[in-house]
Amino acid sequence: MNQENASCPKKHFFGPASSRITVKGTIYPIEVGMRRVALTRSYECKGERFDAMPLYDTSGPFGDAEREHDVRKGLEPVRDRWGFDRGTVESVGGELSMTGRKPRVAKAGEAVTQMHFARKGIVTPEMEYVAIRENQALEAWIEKCGGKPVTPEMVRSEVARGRAIIPANINHPEIEPMIIGRNFRVKINANIGNSALGSSIDEEVEKAVWSCRWGADTVMDLSTGKNIHQTREWILRNSPVPIGTVPLYQALEKVGGKAEELSWEVYRDTLVEQAEQGVDYFTIHSGILAATLPDAEARQTGIVSRGGSIMARWCRAHKQENFLFTRFDDICDILRSYDVAISLGDALRPGSIGDANDAAQFGELKTLGELTLRAWKRDVQVMIEGPGHVPLHMIRENMEMQLKHCHEAPFYTLGPLVTDVAAGYDHVNSAIGGTLIASLGCSMLCYVTPKEHLGLPNRDDVREGVIVHRVAAHAADIAKGSATAWLRDELMSKARYAFAWEDQFSLALDPLKTRQIHAQNIAATGDTSATAKYCTMCGPDFCSMKRSQETTAAGL
Amino acid sequence: MNQENASCPKKHFFGPASSRITVKGTIYPIEVGMRRVALTRSYECKGERFDAMPLYDTSGPFGDAEREHDVRKGLEPVRDRWGFDRGTVESVGGELSMTGRKPRVAKAGEAVTQMHFARKGIVTPEMEYVAIRENQALEAWIEKCGGKPVTPEMVRSEVARGRAIIPANINHPEIEPMIIGRNFRVKINANIGNSALGSSIDEEVEKAVWSCRWGADTVMDLSTGKNIHQTREWILRNSPVPIGTVPLYQALEKVGGKAEELSWEVYRDTLVEQAEQGVDYFTIHSGILAATLPDAEARQTGIVSRGGSIMARWCRAHKQENFLFTRFDDICDILRSYDVAISLGDALRPGSIGDANDAAQFGELKTLGELTLRAWKRDVQVMIEGPGHVPLHMIRENMEMQLKHCHEAPFYTLGPLVTDVAAGYDHVNSAIGGTLIASLGCSMLCYVTPKEHLGLPNRDDVREGVIVHRVAAHAADIAKGSATAWLRDELMSKARYAFAWEDQFSLALDPLKTRQIHAQNIAATGDTSATAKYCTMCGPDFCSMKRSQETTAAGL
Repeated sequence: MNQENASCPKKHFFGPASSRITVKGTIYPIEVGMRRVALTRSYECKGERFDAMPLYDTSGPFGDAEREHDVRKGLEPVRDRWGFDRGTVESVGGELSMTGRKPRVAKAGEAVTQMHFARKGIVTPEMEYVAIRENQALEAWIEKCGGKPVTPEMVRSEVARGRAIIPANINHPEIEPMIIGRNFRVKINANIGNSALGSSIDEEVEKAVWSCRWGADTVMDLSTGKNIHQTREWILRNSPVPIGTVPLYQALEKVGGKAEELSWEVYRDTLVEQAEQGVDYFTIHSGILAATLPDAEARQTGIVSRGGSIMARWCRAHKQENFLFTRFDDICDILRSYDVAISLGDALRPGSIGDANDAAQFGELKTLGELTLRAWKRDVQVMIEGPGHVPLHMIRENMEMQLKHCHEAPFYTLGPLVTDVAAGYDHVNSAIGGTLIASLGCSMLCYVTPKEHLGLPNRDDVREGVIVHRVAAHAADIAKGSATAWLRDELMSKARYAFAWEDQFSLALDPLKTRQIHAQNIAATGDTSATAKYCTMCGPDFCSMKRSQETTAAGL
Repeated sequence: MNQENASCPKKHFFGPASSRITVKGTIYPIEVGMRRVALTRSYECKGERFDAMPLYDTSGPFGDAEREHDVRKGLEPVRDRWGFDRGTVESVGGELSMTGRKPRVAKAGEAVTQMHFARKGIVTPEMEYVAIRENQALEAWIEKCGGKPVTPEMVRSEVARGRAIIPANINHPEIEPMIIGRNFRVKINANIGNSALGSSIDEEVEKAVWSCRWGADTVMDLSTGKNIHQTREWILRNSPVPIGTVPLYQALEKVGGKAEELSWEVYRDTLVEQAEQGVDYFTIHSGILAATLPDAEARQTGIVSRGGSIMARWCRAHKQENFLFTRFDDICDILRSYDVAISLGDALRPGSIGDANDAAQFGELKTLGELTLRAWKRDVQVMIEGPGHVPLHMIRENMEMQLKHCHEAPFYTLGPLVTDVAAGYDHVNSAIGGTLIASLGCSMLCYVTPKEHLGLPNRDDVREGVIVHRVAAHAADIAKGSATAWLRDELMSKARYAFAWEDQFSLALDPLKTRQIHAQNIAATGDTSATAKYCTMCGPDFCSMKRSQETTAAGL
């Protein structure tokens, strides 16, 4: 399809040493997908030897090098095989999906959410799945490091408590469940969308798969152009990761782009339409209230959330309170019937560091906390969206305020960007703030690409955005004491010290780029083997590690 | 010369609104170079209107779009015109520089260092220069923000105290002086070097200029191949920023690459040779002691400092203490005659997060603190090199230990990298750790490029490495409360909210890339003007800022 694919046959995407493995559940007939990289030698870590490392993997069946995939058929509906009775019914009115399936919905008045089951003390297959997945088949290692492996019961308890969510719509049986919460691995989200300014459906499906291949844990489909329903259908049927949307965008399309003409009815129908398709979480801007608009408008950069600006306009035009707020309980009643999680939108997130942590932002945060309790009352899973632009020294306060006001519901931030002048490099800007806030307890980082503030990302930008946020999330996991994250670094460093290049490629966050750069440099020296016993950066004569080892070996 | 130059005529390097300006001194006949970007409108910040912003600029005379430069002639020796009597003499034995100048040296037994003058209560032209430069002609703004503009006397006091250094060899009259210390703007260094694996002299000179165009405050020439003397000469004569080196590399070349054959005499002669050429600071690995080698060798990744591994080998071979330690006072006596600052090398910096903050690292840090006092006794300026690989949660301890053991001498770190698995993205990895440590008081960040651990950087890598570390340094300045850094962000955000694209390009850290990305996206829409009244990321219909402004303007 393009340069990258040309130079990267499918089976070498993660390198030849990588293979997809599955770990079976003990409660349910689940098979938890992971990747395993075989190492060229065994490395000793804390007295244990490792000749392979299992890795957390977001690429799902696409991580299987041998697999042929037909996007028209979509992925297998694996969750349907787990034999868990959710008491759902098929929706008689709903549209058939491209697979011919009818949408499912809970029986009238009932809930099918993970929180509902968790609170009833029931461990679902999804809970067992994420428990196994988080441990990466490294339970013994985790215990050796003094940690506690994740158990299905611990997952249940965190979900019941609202401190973690498992976004998994009953109409999205294709996903490999994952969990978002601060006592789990830090997750990242990638946005895609066929904005009016470009891109096609085929590209969007490809982009969704592309971003989870590189490490996106969830994908938000922010499409705003034509064919919005069809685009989403294709993405959902082909996505092994949960899909989030902002239903307001589609509702706005339905009323010809005029915010004033939005109504609860149009919005409600859109929620149902998307819930029936299988969207796993909705961003809903219920926290922006008519009373807070003057605060927002007095700011340096006003309202920079699309959803926020739409609802502000609606409130002004109708001189009424935001219907996403007044109808919040009705929204929850819909969502609980499909298990769509709510991502409470931060309509008043700061769009410049000058607006960070102001009255508008923290005022909305308090409202989000109140809404969280209302959603929980209906067993709806909730996470809280966060900024945005926040200078480094004000990030901690952001995290603390979120914990305080939002009852420990997971925090999901966009960055934060720590300066406003990094256009063209805002992915790095975001990774800087993101690492810090994730290390302090933020559960998921929304990626930012190098095109932020300037244009729509292409494939390279998506890859770059995903990987740098994986760097951020991984670094935060290490700072939080994750034994599995630490092991990967330890093996990498041992491979580095042993000049085991293949192992370094396998363990790197971007195996392909690492391999390519190394190959270019080795080629420049005329040494065409990938086994050079020196660091290609300094060359054979000035390699400190080589010297250090020679000295020790020679007993000098 | 290449693609970038082709698409970027010299005068558009910083954009058409940028021009080089100078600010005159009041004590000395100095003209302090800056850049000024004219804005397309005036913006109000704290009641003051700005229709232009002066920017700190590292590109020196190269920032002047109209200037024709002949690398064979080099830059003007501006410092020689400042009429400050350093009591120096011309060296009778020294080699002529390419300009025909004889090297200068202090009279026997005397010191010509900035610290020497500072302690005598004398404000040098360099001190006045950096004071004016740090303020960016924004004294009134700084006061309005409750800050204190930098004064020459404050600079003198910080240099006398050892809390800041002005690397400015008396044989490098071409530089625009700059200051490194935690009460000043955070600085960044770019490394260049014709490693044995590639690159030519012309490329190296071009690279030095290239990196300071993008924002490198100092450049380290780490050349290890042939023509090392000549390469350095060309770089020095063409560099407006201070140049650092690791003299040990050249000394090693002189003894055929055999560490065992190094001797004090060879090393001493190399120091004199480079000091006469005008190198502004030397990395010297005096802190690695024979007694600490067992600690270092027990590590996961041993010794990853080139200089450290060389001296470890020498110590082992000779069963003697490191001569850079035993001869430290002799080294200082040479350096004080030219005003070469010492950058005390961290030979035992961790090469993996597993080795961070260990006994080897902190043991060496204590020794560096003792050496600092010895250097100060001889009026030699000192900064302390730091790691390396350090997980995020251990960075604060690193900074605190440095402050504690090294008497507040400036800290100059490489990263730190917060994970070991980011090969191909280590520039981002480094910017993450770098932002945090700089916000805590680290004075200068050594850049890391995307090729770190894998190969030698090319021009694009250098630019990428420089800019992401400028993002880090700038974000740290903001976190530290810098009024000048804040103003740039405030103007940028106001320009963003006003859709003033030209102003956004001018104020961005990489004006060229910002302009190019925006142009590509505008072209995709068919709207070829650069005045689109919407954000090119979301398109005209979904621009939140546009909507937010329309709503307010319509009184809705």
